[in-house]
Amino acid sequence: SIDGDRLWDSLMEMAKIGKTAKDGVCRLALTDLDRESRDLFIDWCKAEGCSIRIDKMGNIFARREGRNPDLPPVVMGSHLDSQPTGGKYDGVYGVLSGLEVIRTLNEAKYETEAPLEVVCWTNEEGSRFAPAMVASGVFAKVFDLEYGHSRADVDGKTMGEELERIGYMGPDEATIDAHPMGAYFEAHIEQGPILEDEGKDIGIVTDAQGQRWYEIKFTGVEAHAGPTPMKTRKDALLGAARVVDLVNKIGLDRSPLACATVGMMQIHPNSRNVIPGEVFFTVDFRHPDDAVLADMDKALREGVEKIAKDIGLQTELEQIFYYAPVPFDKSCVDAVRMGAELGGFSAREIVSGAGHDACYLAQVCPTAMIFIPCVDGISHNEIEEVHKHWSDAGGQVLLHAVLAKADE
Amino acid sequence: SIDGDRLWDSLMEMAKIGKTAKDGVCRLALTDLDRESRDLFIDWCKAEGCSIRIDKMGNIFARREGRNPDLPPVVMGSHLDSQPTGGKYDGVYGVLSGLEVIRTLNEAKYETEAPLEVVCWTNEEGSRFAPAMVASGVFAKVFDLEYGHSRADVDGKTMGEELERIGYMGPDEATIDAHPMGAYFEAHIEQGPILEDEGKDIGIVTDAQGQRWYEIKFTGVEAHAGPTPMKTRKDALLGAARVVDLVNKIGLDRSPLACATVGMMQIHPNSRNVIPGEVFFTVDFRHPDDAVLADMDKALREGVEKIAKDIGLQTELEQIFYYAPVPFDKSCVDAVRMGAELGGFSAREIVSGAGHDACYLAQVCPTAMIFIPCVDGISHNEIEEVHKHWSDAGGQVLLHAVLAKADE
Ligand SMILES: NC(=O)NCCC(=O)O
Ligand SMILES: NC(=O)NCCC(=O)O
Repeated sequence: SIDGDRLWDSLMEMAKIGKTAKDGVCRLALTDLDRESRDLFIDWCKAEGCSIRIDKMGNIFARREGRNPDLPPVVMGSHLDSQPTGGKYDGVYGVLSGLEVIRTLNEAKYETEAPLEVVCWTNEEGSRFAPAMVASGVFAKVFDLEYGHSRADVDGKTMGEELERIGYMGPDEATIDAHPMGAYFEAHIEQGPILEDEGKDIGIVTDAQGQRWYEIKFTGVEAHAGPTPMKTRKDALLGAARVVDLVNKIGLDRSPLACATVGMMQIHPNSRNVIPGEVFFTVDFRHPDDAVLADMDKALREGVEKIAKDIGLQTELEQIFYYAPVPFDKSCVDAVRMGAELGGFSAREIVSGAGHDACYLAQVCPTAMIFIPCVDGISHNEIEEVHKHWSDAGGQVLLHAVLAKADE
Repeated sequence: SIDGDRLWDSLMEMAKIGKTAKDGVCRLALTDLDRESRDLFIDWCKAEGCSIRIDKMGNIFARREGRNPDLPPVVMGSHLDSQPTGGKYDGVYGVLSGLEVIRTLNEAKYETEAPLEVVCWTNEEGSRFAPAMVASGVFAKVFDLEYGHSRADVDGKTMGEELERIGYMGPDEATIDAHPMGAYFEAHIEQGPILEDEGKDIGIVTDAQGQRWYEIKFTGVEAHAGPTPMKTRKDALLGAARVVDLVNKIGLDRSPLACATVGMMQIHPNSRNVIPGEVFFTVDFRHPDDAVLADMDKALREGVEKIAKDIGLQTELEQIFYYAPVPFDKSCVDAVRMGAELGGFSAREIVSGAGHDACYLAQVCPTAMIFIPCVDGISHNEIEEVHKHWSDAGGQVLLHAVLAKADE
């Protein structure tokens, strides 16, 4: 059995790095705080006798050898970066429950057949650098290294530069070819309300929704808010506002499965008495069915064109990120199901609403995910909360699933 | 006759301070660039033999004595601060055409009966520090000094601190009681399309629209854009977007006289995959009829309440700025009309769509304004443009109007 208290203590210790006023975490990818959390993770892994490998995307692999050095490792993990106003569990839980599995096996002096590894992926959140999961995407050969390194934040700093700056540009190739994996398991909070609502402790994640992310820029004409008649205005913010409403409608019309969000908007010149001349904003679409996702795309493009035409705006619209719905590996999903049964936890199958590094890994190695509930389904919020017995349960299921695969 | 070339050269010289890539000006109130423009203005005034007086709001008065030292001065002026992406003429034109009148009289060795002054008011734009025209408002006793000094920018820096920092916290009381005025004339670009459309060189400004400015904050619940079902969301940006559309409708419904604008919006946490939990934004309403302005206020409050209720948002709504429509002084307006006739310029009466320092001055001394056209009516935009013959005409009318009053 894993030591739930030890796992919890590590979660709380890690949450001190980037702790916010409202008891959340702000630890944006490749900031000094991200470096601190990486350093701490590596210290903990070394204390367990693990060897450390860092690749050119800053992904960190901590390895515990198995009996058979010829077998590819069974890998557990997630990410340590957070949203600007994030919580203590999103990502961190998957990394530290992996570490807890290793601590447990060390304590029990249990040797697995295949080696085990815990991985921390870089910039999963996609908040500082878009898109999300870019480093696991490079690892899974969805993006090339150059694309990964060239992702830039709002100040124009690139991931490549920032990896160098914080000392996490590792020497190893960042692809699965250079580092084959036997299986990948990611434990994560659900970030939605389903498990808690149904009183289940464990979600057996069978699939992940597809996603499409967009960047839209409207250009109108900046002018004085006082003497410029309503009818001659080309107000870029009016256009963006109508798209926000449209995006909401696109989601609602395909409810309950669809999600549609405008999360970011930048207004220029953003002055009280100036009609905005330029607005940049983002759209995030999700659906488990790729055909519906394509239909949402169509509705967006048509709607944006009409809105821009009505107001007289110029439009730039780019889909910057897409992946189709992801089915997880049947034998890995079964290992999770079996783990939940062995542990005696209430469980149900579930589709992930969020993107995870596991979604990219699933394209190149047998992959599954374990969800635990979070209070009120709230995540990407400083008040994100988890009950300790959920955390215990997830760690235990991870242990069972990993052993099943490593000793197969 | 004024020297139109000299006025134009001074405009171009001043426009170098804070020049932007698109040939506009960014010279926010009380920045180092604002200081530079003030220093240059003072140098020019001193070269004309003027004495300089700076008050506790940083308003600068440059004085040319008259024959009768007992008469209060006839004052000309406007402001040197700009919008973040402003033009070369908004405000500057009123200050430098005032200086041109003094240069012309010096050259002609013409002594007026009353003293003449050129004033540069602090923070007219209201962009860095809201509300607009705050320093002329203090001078006209609409606000007290403490209110003026405590206005803060988005970084929390106050006008009082910034006046000290740039060395423009003067010793003199910033009120008309300490510094009575015989009359105030402000020359300004129209910032709207009417004069150019009708082929007039001069606008005889009879009134200014009333204004109401608001700050609104919506608070919802930040949550993950992926696994959070559409129906349980409390999306603060969705609320703000609907208010942008509502504000536009409030303006359009009362067109052509009403103007209604959302110019500024700040989204929190402003991350692509997070449902926005908090949005702060501003509303700017204008109308020449106070009753209609009150009706717009009612429509806004009712609409905001309904929108917030539909989505489940908490609302803070505050009207932070109001003034009733302003009628200018009949005898000063007549002086402007007479000036346009004397100069042989085509002219029409016009209502100002923008707020101006003259709007506050009108409450405490005889005041009028002279408008010149600007190309396509565009202002608060780097491409703001004026034809030189318009600039010449405005300066000439100012000279006539001021002499009429100063030698009355
Ligand atoms: N799990 C998580 O928060 N991932 C970020 C990427 C996404 O928005 O789905
Ligand atoms: N003239 C001018 O741009 N004034 C700023 C205040 C306003 O918005 O009316």
